[in-house]
Amino acid sequence: MSTPATTRLLTELSGPAVASTLTADSIVVLPVGSIEHHGPHLPVATDLLMAEWLAAAVTDAAATDAAAAAGLDVWRLPALPFTKSDEHAWAPGTIWLDAETLFRTVVAIGASVAATPARTLVFVNGHGGNVALLQVLLREVRRRSGLRTFLLGVDIPPGESERRGEQSFGIHGGHGETSLLLHLRPELVDLALATAAVPEHLAPFERIGFGGAPVQFGWLSDDFGAGPSAGVVGDPTTATAEAGADLARQLLADTLASLQEIARWPIPARDPSA
Amino acid sequence: MSTPATTRLLTELSGPAVASTLTADSIVVLPVGSIEHHGPHLPVATDLLMAEWLAAAVTDAAATDAAAAAGLDVWRLPALPFTKSDEHAWAPGTIWLDAETLFRTVVAIGASVAATPARTLVFVNGHGGNVALLQVLLREVRRRSGLRTFLLGVDIPPGESERRGEQSFGIHGGHGETSLLLHLRPELVDLALATAAVPEHLAPFERIGFGGAPVQFGWLSDDFGAGPSAGVVGDPTTATAEAGADLARQLLADTLASLQEIARWPIPARDPSA
Amino acid sequence: MSTPATTRLLTELSGPAVASTLTADSIVVLPVGSIEHHGPHLPVATDLLMAEWLAAAVTDAAATDAAAAAGLDVWRLPALPFTKSDEHAWAPGTIWLDAETLFRTVVAIGASVAATPARTLVFVNGHGGNVALLQVLLREVRRRSGLRTFLLGVDIPPGESERRGEQSFGIHGGHGETSLLLHLRPELVDLALATAAVPEHLAPFERIGFGGAPVQFGWLSDDFGAGPSAGVVGDPTTATAEAGADLARQLLADTLASLQEIARWPIPARDPSA
Amino acid sequence: MSTPATTRLLTELSGPAVASTLTADSIVVLPVGSIEHHGPHLPVATDLLMAEWLAAAVTDAAATDAAAAAGLDVWRLPALPFTKSDEHAWAPGTIWLDAETLFRTVVAIGASVAATPARTLVFVNGHGGNVALLQVLLREVRRRSGLRTFLLGVDIPPGESERRGEQSFGIHGGHGETSLLLHLRPELVDLALATAAVPEHLAPFERIGFGGAPVQFGWLSDDFGAGPSAGVVGDPTTATAEAGADLARQLLADTLASLQEIARWPIPARDPSA
Amino acid sequence: MSTPATTRLLTELSGPAVASTLTADSIVVLPVGSIEHHGPHLPVATDLLMAEWLAAAVTDAAATDAAAAAGLDVWRLPALPFTKSDEHAWAPGTIWLDAETLFRTVVAIGASVAATPARTLVFVNGHGGNVALLQVLLREVRRRSGLRTFLLGVDIPPGESERRGEQSFGIHGGHGETSLLLHLRPELVDLALATAAVPEHLAPFERIGFGGAPVQFGWLSDDFGAGPSAGVVGDPTTATAEAGADLARQLLADTLASLQEIARWPIPARDPSA
Amino acid sequence: MSTPATTRLLTELSGPAVASTLTADSIVVLPVGSIEHHGPHLPVATDLLMAEWLAAAVTDAAATDAAAAAGLDVWRLPALPFTKSDEHAWAPGTIWLDAETLFRTVVAIGASVAATPARTLVFVNGHGGNVALLQVLLREVRRRSGLRTFLLGVDIPPGESERRGEQSFGIHGGHGETSLLLHLRPELVDLALATAAVPEHLAPFERIGFGGAPVQFGWLSDDFGAGPSAGVVGDPTTATAEAGADLARQLLADTLASLQEIARWPIPARDPSA
Repeated sequence: MSTPATTRLLTELSGPAVASTLTADSIVVLPVGSIEHHGPHLPVATDLLMAEWLAAAVTDAAATDAAAAAGLDVWRLPALPFTKSDEHAWAPGTIWLDAETLFRTVVAIGASVAATPARTLVFVNGHGGNVALLQVLLREVRRRSGLRTFLLGVDIPPGESERRGEQSFGIHGGHGETSLLLHLRPELVDLALATAAVPEHLAPFERIGFGGAPVQFGWLSDDFGAGPSAGVVGDPTTATAEAGADLARQLLADTLASLQEIARWPIPARDPSA
Repeated sequence: MSTPATTRLLTELSGPAVASTLTADSIVVLPVGSIEHHGPHLPVATDLLMAEWLAAAVTDAAATDAAAAAGLDVWRLPALPFTKSDEHAWAPGTIWLDAETLFRTVVAIGASVAATPARTLVFVNGHGGNVALLQVLLREVRRRSGLRTFLLGVDIPPGESERRGEQSFGIHGGHGETSLLLHLRPELVDLALATAAVPEHLAPFERIGFGGAPVQFGWLSDDFGAGPSAGVVGDPTTATAEAGADLARQLLADTLASLQEIARWPIPARDPSA
Repeated sequence: MSTPATTRLLTELSGPAVASTLTADSIVVLPVGSIEHHGPHLPVATDLLMAEWLAAAVTDAAATDAAAAAGLDVWRLPALPFTKSDEHAWAPGTIWLDAETLFRTVVAIGASVAATPARTLVFVNGHGGNVALLQVLLREVRRRSGLRTFLLGVDIPPGESERRGEQSFGIHGGHGETSLLLHLRPELVDLALATAAVPEHLAPFERIGFGGAPVQFGWLSDDFGAGPSAGVVGDPTTATAEAGADLARQLLADTLASLQEIARWPIPARDPSA
Repeated sequence: MSTPATTRLLTELSGPAVASTLTADSIVVLPVGSIEHHGPHLPVATDLLMAEWLAAAVTDAAATDAAAAAGLDVWRLPALPFTKSDEHAWAPGTIWLDAETLFRTVVAIGASVAATPARTLVFVNGHGGNVALLQVLLREVRRRSGLRTFLLGVDIPPGESERRGEQSFGIHGGHGETSLLLHLRPELVDLALATAAVPEHLAPFERIGFGGAPVQFGWLSDDFGAGPSAGVVGDPTTATAEAGADLARQLLADTLASLQEIARWPIPARDPSA
Repeated sequence: MSTPATTRLLTELSGPAVASTLTADSIVVLPVGSIEHHGPHLPVATDLLMAEWLAAAVTDAAATDAAAAAGLDVWRLPALPFTKSDEHAWAPGTIWLDAETLFRTVVAIGASVAATPARTLVFVNGHGGNVALLQVLLREVRRRSGLRTFLLGVDIPPGESERRGEQSFGIHGGHGETSLLLHLRPELVDLALATAAVPEHLAPFERIGFGGAPVQFGWLSDDFGAGPSAGVVGDPTTATAEAGADLARQLLADTLASLQEIARWPIPARDPSA
Repeated sequence: MSTPATTRLLTELSGPAVASTLTADSIVVLPVGSIEHHGPHLPVATDLLMAEWLAAAVTDAAATDAAAAAGLDVWRLPALPFTKSDEHAWAPGTIWLDAETLFRTVVAIGASVAATPARTLVFVNGHGGNVALLQVLLREVRRRSGLRTFLLGVDIPPGESERRGEQSFGIHGGHGETSLLLHLRPELVDLALATAAVPEHLAPFERIGFGGAPVQFGWLSDDFGAGPSAGVVGDPTTATAEAGADLARQLLADTLASLQEIARWPIPARDPSA
């Protein structure tokens, strides 16, 4: 019957409790999901589920693990479920916002967080299609609201077997995401429907590619092929719950380490500007 | 390990399953919450919690109660957590979108739903401050996307005792909402901090008032008084979990009845227009 | 040759006279009309004519009727002729603004009124399709400009005969509006072309409906039928000038009473906010 | 009791009558006014009054004067009262829209007119501050809606005496506008408050100037001086009702001649484009 | 190896040098070009080339010609290459911004210039289709940023021979522009492809016309005819490099005279407003 | 006097020549610069100069180097000079657009390029602050216009000496950019004013960092220190023209290789979508 001492979901506090509990050292985490086609074997909420899980796991760990929590005061917000999934707009089940609407939404959340005592906002992002816009927003929210802003993702490091099968193309609905979902929500995964969709014809290209390649390219998720695996970029057939559990452990440890760095990051909050 | 037959959270389906499972008779429910100051005794997520609960309860009931479910095919989306709470913008803990951003968000969701086989979208709204904008959006989404659109709320009917204490002013953080939260999430309510905040000086006015009054007025939630109960409009001190349970039963029954009417509503979907 | 002492059309004053004549107690009335299809028997300016008439009648009454005018200092602006008539966009003769454009327009008018000494803005609205957006604007203008804001409409109370014929569906071009126009501008009404257009198939619905019903729905005005009465929702065939005269008297008295309440409403103007 | 045969206010027709009465040869006139400071001697509605008068006079003349009306089918809309008066934003009594809001408004009106059989839209503009934006809109409306679009103003030709006193600076609240108002609405003019406000220090400049000068400059109306005549650019002290009557005759004749040219202008309407 | 004393391209200075070199008397020139169809004989960059040339020539002259430069401190920015060429949107090779995007761009440049010590911004515009929007921006930039703002163009005065051939219709790709390009960049002109495109059927109209005519009209550049000369309005066949050289001399002298007037224009910068 | 066969600046062609010369295999390059503070030793146009140089060099090489040019048909547009430099908004001399304005600008350019026969648009970007937004635009332009879109930058690979001095922080005004400018435009560089500004206090952080770090952070360029080197992130004191020449060779070779990959990239253009 009293405001729970242990919740780390900020929105379970009352307004006055938000004002009296948060401090300038508090870190507010915004999970950013998406609702978008992930192939026939994964739910459209895959990115949302991953972002919600990681944000909850890390805020809980920061609150309960004494070693981890030294100096950490981390709170999470409810996740943004609907974001910029325009690359999957062609697929029923995708629910998406255009870039400007998501931009305005995150700017507004930044301004609202800046009205609390907290001075740090961290995006925990589950959807690759949001990364670039959230990078733009890191600066926009800082400039407008003065907050310290950070972006980290549900980043799936390529493992041995994955690299073999996916050749760096496991970015959407492949080994990593499927394994993680098999670990987190196995009842929502239907591996029987999973087929590999690796754009091997792109492998010879040395300069153009996903992520860190020197030449980036614009793509929609049906640019890589049609048929039952349309919209998948990766090989989910090798996914296992065990690999997912390993991945979850790694993600949680990495994210906790990231928050610890964020807590001691030396650049302070600043005044808002127009 | 297979897509669950019983989920009614649409986003737990895969994209192809959304396309093959929904039909023109399917009803898609969007819970609309808010994160906003509700006084010192209630969490800022109060409206979100109520909307999520009602949407989940009614979609589950529609799926499992044979009598109720006759002819009903109801699915729910994840809730919109952050909406138009500008009347509480003054209070830390409120996280709000301006009207245009929420407008664009809901238009985008409408367009995305229209890309599925479903032809009906129902807003289940937990926040009074969204009602007028969602009414505008009923038409906007219908005109643009062609969907059949409906709005229903977590509407708290005034009971005897409430009327005595609140005199029709129990609109925010008062007897009804507090009772419902005591029923749904008692650990998030601190009645010890609850005080009545009934704007009795407005009672003599016959034409100006909330809701159905012939003259509507613009207000921010700190227009009614300062101090510890600032932002509350109502009397939470009379709230009980029992009243909340009664209210929950009534809301569920009413909403199920509403969905049954929606299912047989004779005006069809139409073509989108510019 | 001098600025008229008796005008209550604010825009007939000079700029300096606006500044020296208005006070913090002055009430500025903005009539809000529409130009939209009202069936074959009524002009597309019907809502504009009603709003202009009511605003003029009530400001004149407030200025000249000693009893009524005690404590009232009411001024009117020119009417907004073109507003949000998207439900009639299909019908030639409708001239409409999208929601965002009307929103921006009214926000701008609010800011301009806030630059005068007056601190109260009242929308006198003739078009039902504007109600929800104007309700949003009540708060938006108050938050941004600090003004006290009110909304009242050309609300046509259901009479006996009307209820019999229209069953609560007399919302557009029906008995009330047609009667009022027969009283105000008979030369613009052609009753010979009037036919009843009552959506009787909606009457059995207990939860879904217009106005105060617990479930609101999105509609365009051609959702209720085609043919010569397309776009009408109501029964104009029973309209008479006498009923219109009664209605006019009632509307004027009600609106005057509303303004008197507005004048003594205890919530003050506030500072603008971002 | 029947739709009047003689009205030329388009909005007095019913929707079906708009569709059946207008043809591809019809010309629709939109009067564009403003509500803005015009000095202590003129009402803030000066530009609105002039535009409404000219539009009404010319549509009536086109309808009733057999010689004039040969081949002319001219209809007028209600005036836009609130437009872009940002140069007078500093002065109470000015009610203004920013450029984007007026832009969106006129685009919307263009689209609505394009939904009627008419294919020609003429702006009759009373406010110099709108000219440039309406010139932009001539093309924007044509490109988007396909209409033939024209702009003409309440253009006040410099007469002898005016040129002597005002030296080409009689652009706002000076001899011409004041004379015209003395003719049209003498009860709204207070010449006793009129003082000359001619920016004589600008006269030596040969390249920078108002209107047709090779170098245009950005100005707000208080750039030219403070005091009681702030915001006036011109000399109203020489104004007379007789000069106003002459001016009115000239304006009406010129505008009628302009409409006749518009009617036979050989460039046709075109298809809308994105 | 040191910052050049003589550059007049402001952006060749470092940030600190901008701050220390510019003063409140400095004049910043923004060349405004366009990329748009100019007929088969001229490059699509014609307007950009003219604006860049004129801005460079006049800033150089102001810096080096002792007599001319008395009291002049003129700096130029890089040109805006892409502007509002919607009248040529139908023609491949045109690269254009909609009005709102150009509006926002110039407002942003104004705000940036206002962050330097300079207080004067001059648009040197090469494209007629920008004139009206830049006129709107003169005021918008002044109101928002407080700068003194001026607009001058690459204005081509009608000469004798031109008037004979073009009858005041030489506005796009005709004698003047073609001659100037023959002088400035002869290798980009192909006179063999030039044909006259004079809309002689518009000559009898006395009131409707381009530029200074009392009635302005909305047009796209293919409104005047199809075929190889579509999009040209004028007669390029009479163009010569000699006429271009004369024109260049005249334009440079006129623009220098304009800048001298701007330098001594008595209306000061002002404070920014919202 | 004829359209030059050798120009690779697309805008030197006429409109009809654009239509007849470009093919579906043509690659259109848009250089994207910036005007922003680069410390006291570099011009604010540094990024613009680099982007213009690289785009010109690579299009020329593609046109003239027989080996390189096999299968390459590359054209460049004029550079965008003013882009998103909000991180340097605090520094006079920075001229910047907000994110939305740049977004709209590039979308418009994409639509215009899509109106030519070319089907490939490549951004050659000189400003790190644009990268994220241009990544968003890769997809936005592809989705809306159907073009194949690519982004490559003036990417300065870290060399030995640079790494020693700058420790991966050489991102703005440091060794690489300064060396390149010393090679390209030595008269615009003043090494005497260059001082190192390496944020060594950030070096111990393993997860938070620029570029490829797993945690990105929002920063403005004055977050790293004040004083004469404010806004620089890197060490320009080690810069040499020789290092710049090496860098230029490397950049040109890399970019040519990138264009060759782009030319044979197998994913085709697609139809535009809403």
